[in-house]
Amino acid sequence: MTHRPQQFASDNYAGICPEAFEAMARANDGSASAYGEDVWTKRACDAFRDLFETDCEIFFVFNGTAANALALSALCQSFHSVICSTAAHVETDECGAPEFFSNGAKLLTAASPDGRLTPEILRALATSRSDIHFPKPSVVSITQATETGRVYSIDEVRAISFAARNLGLKLHMDGARFANACARLDCAPADLSWRAGVDVLCFGGAKNGLGLGEAVIFFDRALAADFEYRCKQAGQLASKMRFLSAPWLGLLESGAWLRNARHANFCARKLADAVEASPGVSLTFPVEANAVFLSAPPAMLDALREKGWLFYTFIGAAARFMFAWDADPAQVEALAQDIVEVSRTITP
Amino acid sequence: MTHRPQQFASDNYAGICPEAFEAMARANDGSASAYGEDVWTKRACDAFRDLFETDCEIFFVFNGTAANALALSALCQSFHSVICSTAAHVETDECGAPEFFSNGAKLLTAASPDGRLTPEILRALATSRSDIHFPKPSVVSITQATETGRVYSIDEVRAISFAARNLGLKLHMDGARFANACARLDCAPADLSWRAGVDVLCFGGAKNGLGLGEAVIFFDRALAADFEYRCKQAGQLASKMRFLSAPWLGLLESGAWLRNARHANFCARKLADAVEASPGVSLTFPVEANAVFLSAPPAMLDALREKGWLFYTFIGAAARFMFAWDADPAQVEALAQDIVEVSRTITP
Amino acid sequence: MTHRPQQFASDNYAGICPEAFEAMARANDGSASAYGEDVWTKRACDAFRDLFETDCEIFFVFNGTAANALALSALCQSFHSVICSTAAHVETDECGAPEFFSNGAKLLTAASPDGRLTPEILRALATSRSDIHFPKPSVVSITQATETGRVYSIDEVRAISFAARNLGLKLHMDGARFANACARLDCAPADLSWRAGVDVLCFGGAKNGLGLGEAVIFFDRALAADFEYRCKQAGQLASKMRFLSAPWLGLLESGAWLRNARHANFCARKLADAVEASPGVSLTFPVEANAVFLSAPPAMLDALREKGWLFYTFIGAAARFMFAWDADPAQVEALAQDIVEVSRTITP
Amino acid sequence: MTHRPQQFASDNYAGICPEAFEAMARANDGSASAYGEDVWTKRACDAFRDLFETDCEIFFVFNGTAANALALSALCQSFHSVICSTAAHVETDECGAPEFFSNGAKLLTAASPDGRLTPEILRALATSRSDIHFPKPSVVSITQATETGRVYSIDEVRAISFAARNLGLKLHMDGARFANACARLDCAPADLSWRAGVDVLCFGGAKNGLGLGEAVIFFDRALAADFEYRCKQAGQLASKMRFLSAPWLGLLESGAWLRNARHANFCARKLADAVEASPGVSLTFPVEANAVFLSAPPAMLDALREKGWLFYTFIGAAARFMFAWDADPAQVEALAQDIVEVSRTITP
Repeated sequence: MTHRPQQFASDNYAGICPEAFEAMARANDGSASAYGEDVWTKRACDAFRDLFETDCEIFFVFNGTAANALALSALCQSFHSVICSTAAHVETDECGAPEFFSNGAKLLTAASPDGRLTPEILRALATSRSDIHFPKPSVVSITQATETGRVYSIDEVRAISFAARNLGLKLHMDGARFANACARLDCAPADLSWRAGVDVLCFGGAKNGLGLGEAVIFFDRALAADFEYRCKQAGQLASKMRFLSAPWLGLLESGAWLRNARHANFCARKLADAVEASPGVSLTFPVEANAVFLSAPPAMLDALREKGWLFYTFIGAAARFMFAWDADPAQVEALAQDIVEVSRTITP
Repeated sequence: MTHRPQQFASDNYAGICPEAFEAMARANDGSASAYGEDVWTKRACDAFRDLFETDCEIFFVFNGTAANALALSALCQSFHSVICSTAAHVETDECGAPEFFSNGAKLLTAASPDGRLTPEILRALATSRSDIHFPKPSVVSITQATETGRVYSIDEVRAISFAARNLGLKLHMDGARFANACARLDCAPADLSWRAGVDVLCFGGAKNGLGLGEAVIFFDRALAADFEYRCKQAGQLASKMRFLSAPWLGLLESGAWLRNARHANFCARKLADAVEASPGVSLTFPVEANAVFLSAPPAMLDALREKGWLFYTFIGAAARFMFAWDADPAQVEALAQDIVEVSRTITP
Repeated sequence: MTHRPQQFASDNYAGICPEAFEAMARANDGSASAYGEDVWTKRACDAFRDLFETDCEIFFVFNGTAANALALSALCQSFHSVICSTAAHVETDECGAPEFFSNGAKLLTAASPDGRLTPEILRALATSRSDIHFPKPSVVSITQATETGRVYSIDEVRAISFAARNLGLKLHMDGARFANACARLDCAPADLSWRAGVDVLCFGGAKNGLGLGEAVIFFDRALAADFEYRCKQAGQLASKMRFLSAPWLGLLESGAWLRNARHANFCARKLADAVEASPGVSLTFPVEANAVFLSAPPAMLDALREKGWLFYTFIGAAARFMFAWDADPAQVEALAQDIVEVSRTITP
Repeated sequence: MTHRPQQFASDNYAGICPEAFEAMARANDGSASAYGEDVWTKRACDAFRDLFETDCEIFFVFNGTAANALALSALCQSFHSVICSTAAHVETDECGAPEFFSNGAKLLTAASPDGRLTPEILRALATSRSDIHFPKPSVVSITQATETGRVYSIDEVRAISFAARNLGLKLHMDGARFANACARLDCAPADLSWRAGVDVLCFGGAKNGLGLGEAVIFFDRALAADFEYRCKQAGQLASKMRFLSAPWLGLLESGAWLRNARHANFCARKLADAVEASPGVSLTFPVEANAVFLSAPPAMLDALREKGWLFYTFIGAAARFMFAWDADPAQVEALAQDIVEVSRTITP
């Protein structure tokens, strides 16, 4: 049914990885209590606590938009603002979900060359207004890895959290690709999250091998007060919770969460290495996670499309290629060859 | 892992039925476009259109609370009200989701002996106030089958929709157990929905054999205008949509949606038949779908609990038993025998 | 232009009392800083602090619906509930404002013979559900004087606040007619509010002689955090604040707030005394503030209307008469005589 | 109490003009029906219909933030966007009110040299995204006169409304200083509003001589459906409405609305003429309404402040002076002289 060649337009194009699928199959065994009172959910929560080496609070929700918007709404009131990059998914691709869930909080955005926030940008935004005619900053949101395929180092996250804390702001991390960042830095998840000052992490599952589902992880349990009611009211409490939590268990217990991310990053690196010397083609951003952004003349991109490749150009007109757990290295190579060929034949 | 005896406390305790699971497995084949631009989603939508014999609009969302709340928010503004029974799930078990999604619409509830609305109740509620100091009625919501295990006949739905229409109100049907109602009445889904005047139906999947997911079906396409934006903003648009839609395809193409419901209804009937003559025990409501409510002295219910049976008593202190596609007739019989025995040994 | 006889259908029919009007005229003198940074606003806040003998936080908003809804939204999240009487103005006459401002909080209402809450009712409501499928109680709202013209004694308020506190709930007082309650009990405002456990009081101005305006008074300053942003965002921050605050200053400095309330209560008492012995007529509720509810046969009420009197019958079909600072005793007498006459001539 | 010299930091510093005050005093005569069922409100509505030469719908609300936010929320759903200038009051000075009232609509802003929208900017913004991951444009909002003191000509408004209509967008006009624009253009209000394609106008009262109050005027009556419920729920329905509407009657019947605006514009012109030739000082924007923005070296602005003058510098560091109905030409002259003197003595 899908025997077209593999495409890399989005890491949402991938299927469910075997470890997650098998865990779901195992959980599909007889009856189980609903709404999270089942053994898989308990075990999946414990697996997260082991991974993060702390007694955090975990909530399983259906998708990333909901995870981010619910987490942010727990950190702000309607008259507050959320500081983030102009490239942040919460700003550009969630159709106003943060505003909706929070009943009106405003996103204060700052542009930066590569979509990353810095302590300076954050401070400038947070202190630009202090009168009651403009929303009061309450929380900072950073994406790790970023929408541009960059990865904040542990020190960079620490510097941001330090600046945030000094301004009385909470720190939210949109970790739709948190696993890719961990793989890149080869660090303990704890070091890249709570030990670096992150208050709430939305850990992405769909881009890491699940069919659907994200985990909202509160390292400061006080911030999670009544969050279960928030999830329920917002239509984010699964009745047959085991089918949302068991796949996470599969990812975490097997180590697939990290293997998948490493493989995705590897494929991005592979493509980048193969094409970056091609005339007319350049890497828009350093390749640090599972994304490759290519700047190239429109004629080259057109030629690439004619060869059957799908990709988006929504960030700075660059062609974006995203890799997931299932990326076929042979197909990555085929893409690389086509890029090289197009680069040779098209005069910029 | 779950080799405790099967329980009937909720139809959310059941797993995923084979037809749905296999469809999901088949869909897990290579890469596919995201956000619904895949073949399974298109086929699942068409399967619904076939089933309902009309060119309706279908949206796949994650759970029933979201389905109902989104549908209602498309039918009312914040200053409107939703007329429903005091027993309605939207009123009793969605933690204020309709109010949240609509930004403040009020539920106007009326009690009735069995949790069903009637045209008279509806008219009385809708006309009780007409000043601007109270929310203006905009939509009627009925549950089919009801939370009390009753089923509205086609004529009853028609009478309600007729009354609603005369009052300028839209008709929403919470069909978390719509399949059970169709099974009971042995009627075409179209006859029980749009041909009877239903504007929007939330067709339940979780209680019908899916792991998760509900379908919001607009028979009046004008009401569905921009509904895809509403879903996206509310965190109800699946990125890997095929895993939400393909199981529906499995249910619909195989006919399992109806078989599952029939089996569940059959088990409820079986239990009811076996126990209704027992002294001290009575059926709280006529058994028409997959629920059995038993009124019995507290001592009997305690004795039943001691025998290891799980059940809720949140409606009028009656013990509720719910059956799903996976109910084991032998286990239903075991439950029936225990009820009969408890009835014999406990003097009311 | 208005030389029709005075009517008592509502205490909103009254004009602005001289003390408030003169204060507004005095404030209309040259230019003044906007948004509350003017001397009248500072003095009005101080006058409230003097009156309540405590360093409370005061916010001037435009009307009672906004005052109540903003105060409640500061005390609850969208997934919380507000416990109140079925007769409460927040439930019956604010068109869903509490739900709107809080983004979905639900009102849990209990009926009582006279519209007053008791600790027992409150406890029963607050403990009726404790699962996440239903909004979690967060705040109790009582109206003083009630919509039925009753007044809670200081001990009754204390008992309610004690019960609320034990349940972890805050206490909000809708004091649209707080002055009338103080006048009735002849007590210090502090004794009837914060000393009795009230967290937030909405002190009514319009019914006390202002043209418009209510004061939201936080006795627990922590609850007022960022409330100025909430007011601004909700369209309740007056630019030329002096015209909202100065009339309060007029009311408070002159003592008119209490004189006005006493006069209104006196007129209610006068009417009640004059008619309660009339055959066929009875006082629906004890007359304790500025309202008189009369139960009488429909024919009598019709006859009264034919004599030109305006009144509402929205509570239990009783005729409601409300008195304000401007009630003319002669006109009250004329109404009383008409009631007595109607009572004599109409056979019940 | 206020015998400090007159200041021009804001047109909200002015008091209530005599015509409005006297109308309020006249309305304070005996009892009157509440919630707009009084003669003054009816007459004020009719006066607006006369002024605009059309049978428009008029709603009186308390302030400009509420007027704009309510009007916009009637023109969009939560998943829609509002297109406006980065300088728009709805974006910069309403603390997220449009987002709050609409439950999450996003403001799409475009910068322009002088804070005015053009058809080109509008088209570019409205067509920049068309996928469901980003809010769908629904309405355009322009401010007349702008926050920068500019005035759109009738032809400019027409061009914008033409572009808006072609894109399926409604046109909202924030007319906080609509009167100043009419005074500038010396045109019929109808020509600058509905005849130029404006759907909803928020006509500002506070800046035109009222103590408080704005009028939301729907030229397309269909858009006003149920708007009275919206006002009520949002805490914007005055109980003693006559005190909100009668001052409008005073403004309109006496012609003060236009006289006040002309005087304010005249004073701005007067200041601009007196200072624009001064070395180091320049007009930041052409002076077309009641605002003068002066660009000058910081040292000059400091010197001006030391002379006791109050002003804001929130737009591009320019000093803003705003004039109202009560501006004293002698005091305007005094300000001009101080500016000229500062310009002479401070070397840029």
